[in-house]
Amino acid sequence: MDTRIEKQLAFSLEIDKEKNIFRQTHLSNSGRNENDAEHAWHIALMAYLFREYANEKIDIAKVMLMCLIHDIVEIDAGDTYAYDTKGLQTQKAREDAAKERIFSILPEDQRIELTELFDEFEAYETAESKFAHAMDNFQPLMLNNSNGGNDWREHGVTAEQVYKRQGKTKLGSEELFKVTDQIIQENIQKGNLKE
Amino acid sequence: MDTRIEKQLAFSLEIDKEKNIFRQTHLSNSGRNENDAEHAWHIALMAYLFREYANEKIDIAKVMLMCLIHDIVEIDAGDTYAYDTKGLQTQKAREDAAKERIFSILPEDQRIELTELFDEFEAYETAESKFAHAMDNFQPLMLNNSNGGNDWREHGVTAEQVYKRQGKTKLGSEELFKVTDQIIQENIQKGNLKE
Repeated sequence: MDTRIEKQLAFSLEIDKEKNIFRQTHLSNSGRNENDAEHAWHIALMAYLFREYANEKIDIAKVMLMCLIHDIVEIDAGDTYAYDTKGLQTQKAREDAAKERIFSILPEDQRIELTELFDEFEAYETAESKFAHAMDNFQPLMLNNSNGGNDWREHGVTAEQVYKRQGKTKLGSEELFKVTDQIIQENIQKGNLKE
Repeated sequence: MDTRIEKQLAFSLEIDKEKNIFRQTHLSNSGRNENDAEHAWHIALMAYLFREYANEKIDIAKVMLMCLIHDIVEIDAGDTYAYDTKGLQTQKAREDAAKERIFSILPEDQRIELTELFDEFEAYETAESKFAHAMDNFQPLMLNNSNGGNDWREHGVTAEQVYKRQGKTKLGSEELFKVTDQIIQENIQKGNLKE
């Protein structure tokens, strides 16, 4: 694998594996577990549709690309459930090793570009990162809500845990946080989320 | 569902169904059939990575968005295999009805925007459409090649049929067509494609 295009082709084939990484979230209509690739598709498209609700001016192409690549490291590191306290402790080390291996398949300039974009997403500091995270938080909430909060009940998740994660959505979008808050409150009332 | 954001939320939940539309293509490592949502994710990301090989100057954000939405109509219309002559005869009518129903869930301005983008993709005329199609052609070829041409052998596809579809890749990218041509020739030699 010497030429530039061969490296790009090898990377394109490698990331196909992301379709085999399954999340705790279930598809709507109480479907099967969702995989990382289709989740990334969903949030990239939702980012575009909801871009008018971003708190700050955003480069939407950058947000979409961030959404598309944000879970590639899970090909090696696996999915870490947002409410898995033990898994979260080792998540960074696992994902750093994955980032190094997988993005290094690319030509050097693209390795640097995608690594920087992934790091920017993780740092949760720029307008684009905050809005991409708002989507990454909101989309599973939307699916889970459509399924009567099954994923939360299955894992005994508390309202406090959900607010800790979902509260950060307001950093990217005050408007989407209003919808988030309403959904959480409804699920507390229905007993789908423990108080 | 009256407010703007409620319409956007309803559309976002509706398109979740695209994850249940399965294609004839199999994932790498002889995996399961691929679904439309993860296929769309793959080609949107590949479009970004391979954008340097586009024949003409392209708006890459537009290409990525086109890739993300290009199969939404299949939620109602189903996937039509590229070499299914009978299915191809009714494809347009089925997809037009689906386009009308699904995009109408959105607020009017976004219904118009996404419908126009979908129509532009289908028309195969603009630089963005031609490059998005190059990705839509190339990605299943790449996966199928990685699996020893199994999908072609299973359906008894001929080299002529493959060239008829894949030949159009050169409208979007001469460079990617060179790779395409090499892959097709190798698969003819291996007997995976009937001459």
